[in-house]
Amino acid sequence: MHIQVLDISCFTCYFTGKKPLDPGCVLACDAERSADRPGCAPVDFPVAVVLPAGGSGERMGLPAPKQFCTILNRPLISYTIQAFERLPWIGTVVVVVAKENHDLMLNIVQKFNHTKVNVVHGGTTRHRSIFSGLQAFCNTSNSLTPKPKVVIIHDAVRPFVEEDLLLKITLAAKEQGASGAIRPLVSTVIATTSEGYLDHSLERAKYRASEMPQGFLYDVIFQAYQRCSELDFEFGSECLHLALQYCGVNAKLIEGPPTLWKVTYKRDLAAAEAIIKETLSMSACIIAGAEAEATELAKTLQKNLNMMETDVIPCAKESNAGYLSKTRNFIHLSMTGSNSLGVLEMVKHFEDTDHARLYPVVIVWVQLNMTKQSVDSQKTDELTAFRILASEVIQGNVLLYGIQIEHTKVPEQWERSVERLTQITVALIRDRNAALTGQLLRV
Amino acid sequence: MHIQVLDISCFTCYFTGKKPLDPGCVLACDAERSADRPGCAPVDFPVAVVLPAGGSGERMGLPAPKQFCTILNRPLISYTIQAFERLPWIGTVVVVVAKENHDLMLNIVQKFNHTKVNVVHGGTTRHRSIFSGLQAFCNTSNSLTPKPKVVIIHDAVRPFVEEDLLLKITLAAKEQGASGAIRPLVSTVIATTSEGYLDHSLERAKYRASEMPQGFLYDVIFQAYQRCSELDFEFGSECLHLALQYCGVNAKLIEGPPTLWKVTYKRDLAAAEAIIKETLSMSACIIAGAEAEATELAKTLQKNLNMMETDVIPCAKESNAGYLSKTRNFIHLSMTGSNSLGVLEMVKHFEDTDHARLYPVVIVWVQLNMTKQSVDSQKTDELTAFRILASEVIQGNVLLYGIQIEHTKVPEQWERSVERLTQITVALIRDRNAALTGQLLRV
Repeated sequence: MHIQVLDISCFTCYFTGKKPLDPGCVLACDAERSADRPGCAPVDFPVAVVLPAGGSGERMGLPAPKQFCTILNRPLISYTIQAFERLPWIGTVVVVVAKENHDLMLNIVQKFNHTKVNVVHGGTTRHRSIFSGLQAFCNTSNSLTPKPKVVIIHDAVRPFVEEDLLLKITLAAKEQGASGAIRPLVSTVIATTSEGYLDHSLERAKYRASEMPQGFLYDVIFQAYQRCSELDFEFGSECLHLALQYCGVNAKLIEGPPTLWKVTYKRDLAAAEAIIKETLSMSACIIAGAEAEATELAKTLQKNLNMMETDVIPCAKESNAGYLSKTRNFIHLSMTGSNSLGVLEMVKHFEDTDHARLYPVVIVWVQLNMTKQSVDSQKTDELTAFRILASEVIQGNVLLYGIQIEHTKVPEQWERSVERLTQITVALIRDRNAALTGQLLRV
Repeated sequence: MHIQVLDISCFTCYFTGKKPLDPGCVLACDAERSADRPGCAPVDFPVAVVLPAGGSGERMGLPAPKQFCTILNRPLISYTIQAFERLPWIGTVVVVVAKENHDLMLNIVQKFNHTKVNVVHGGTTRHRSIFSGLQAFCNTSNSLTPKPKVVIIHDAVRPFVEEDLLLKITLAAKEQGASGAIRPLVSTVIATTSEGYLDHSLERAKYRASEMPQGFLYDVIFQAYQRCSELDFEFGSECLHLALQYCGVNAKLIEGPPTLWKVTYKRDLAAAEAIIKETLSMSACIIAGAEAEATELAKTLQKNLNMMETDVIPCAKESNAGYLSKTRNFIHLSMTGSNSLGVLEMVKHFEDTDHARLYPVVIVWVQLNMTKQSVDSQKTDELTAFRILASEVIQGNVLLYGIQIEHTKVPEQWERSVERLTQITVALIRDRNAALTGQLLRV
């Protein structure tokens, strides 16, 4: 399956990626897949993760470390944690933070309900922080962090790591002692003279960029850190190098997808946000209600929304819970003047199932008007009531927007209206803009 | 001056960049700066540019080459061309395209009124295309492309190159024969064994990534291409290497800003779009009208919009043309029921001055309602008229949105309303979403 592009989007190309990036909603099938992937032995040994997150965000030129920058109101590091936490074969995720960010990190763990995380304090450099993370497993009194066979080291600012690659890294580490993700070089690498002139350029094909994740037999990487020098701790950054130099282990290198890239600059945050929003916009559920006209409209909408996977269901009742849990975008159709019970029912369901904790849920309430006069005057009361409802449900991370569409029997006119309804709906779903919730738009 | 961050934006950090990225509206002051920059000799020799744009967009995995992907309805390559075209000391920009994209490129040149561009056909590889571009200057019968002293080679997919760096590159090329932009390495570079294992890792501090732009004495790079081998033409990619190998010229290396990065993947398009939108959102002009209440609201809005540089002017008359040309965001205040003459006047001005050719102009029409009853019923006629107006002006690249705000004498209530008005206005300006034009929102 490919990531779909939305026709009305500002850009006309595809995010590179062989399969959709998991925004957390396909947990179950991901877990299934890993068990029966051909050629892959199941992971029947303990695997843990160390996420060094002590960085200061210097490169972005800002006070807040980039791993704590938020996308859709959630810190980047929570997305990265989730990428591991959703995999049943991964145990503890040790997050290493600077002392001053300890409370912030605990709040994040609590707010987003991360259940596998153990927060420890890091050192002053990347290597010191990773070593602190590894030492957490030595503390045998801590039953949360039993010593793993394989430990995966990853960056807190690479949120899109997929199970596929994690499996390969883990199995190669078990077999070879060490493994690491690599990518082709994007630019030519050159050696410079001390005066700032070109000395020579490297032949691009012979070299690779070393990326994350990397995997190690726990005993290998722990021993490497025990043996390495102060100089390594202070100025080094490459774990694979330590495993080679101090344990004689040549890491197996595995080519990772481009989505592995490291969020380094603010523009990377914008890119990550775009990927997350695009992934969230790949599906929708249309709640059609019982009226014939609404059911008809639902079918046309489904046809128009061909860039999304859409289901049409009659109502948001318990029996349809399976459909509701598949997506975070809902298009609720009703007749103008209908009460908000249908919306409230959905919101209640999302609360009960914790569906909006990790990603905001969008409800586009489409109000179909069959009679000319009732739409001709729009009461301030109605608008106010809708706005109040929206401001209430946003507390639970549900973004509520309204669209009024007037029914007409003139086919071309109706077609144009539904086309416009589609465009506005897609724009609202894609943008997830909190400032526009509570607005009642018109087609 | 730093790039401002908008408080209500989804992310909380800064785009890295020492000064705002020029979206074309600060041409004049950029040109001035270059003349009197201390320590910089003025460029008193002919400088031209070669932009190889024959790429196929393979890395993104899509049919359209990435240089032709659009951001805000304008192809990426047009932004890059504009980055050079705005500088008075740069002459011809030779754009080298694949034969099948010749007409597409000519359309772009015409649509965005690029006056310095000469389109030529490229070869099958990057080096062949650059050589084709250089050969365009040999054709002495072509008065459009006189032979330059220095030629700058750049990538079509690096739209954010700034004058500062271009000047440094140009002057160093004049002095040394060749020069190139470099960046620190983001990842460790490693050498791999033929079996896919780690051989060794390079010491990061000794190496740099070679980026674009690069500058050359025309005679140096032309000679290098005349002397180089078929193998170079087929598999090489680094112009600095050719200048060294075939002309013995060691390029001067100049560290460029992170904004130099190359748009490679679809996520980079999203990042570029975010940078362009953020830069466009750094200023606004409030047209207050003559009424006391509107003038008062204008002042409060200006205070609230402290993340933008705002001017308040009474009307969009000719005498205020200077204010209108400074920004592409307009907040037009009027009383509910006012006619659309003020808006039409502005749109006419933008047409006359070609102000919306390169970037869409946003007009947020804020309608202030002083009397309770008139807002209580909103006529379909009014809404339809507004939507028709919006659909007309969008033809001229003007995005028109409406917001109705009800006046109240209760201070806290009014404060909340204006705060909400600010949030919606900023959201509309930042997003520049075409699907939402013609909507009349409510505060």
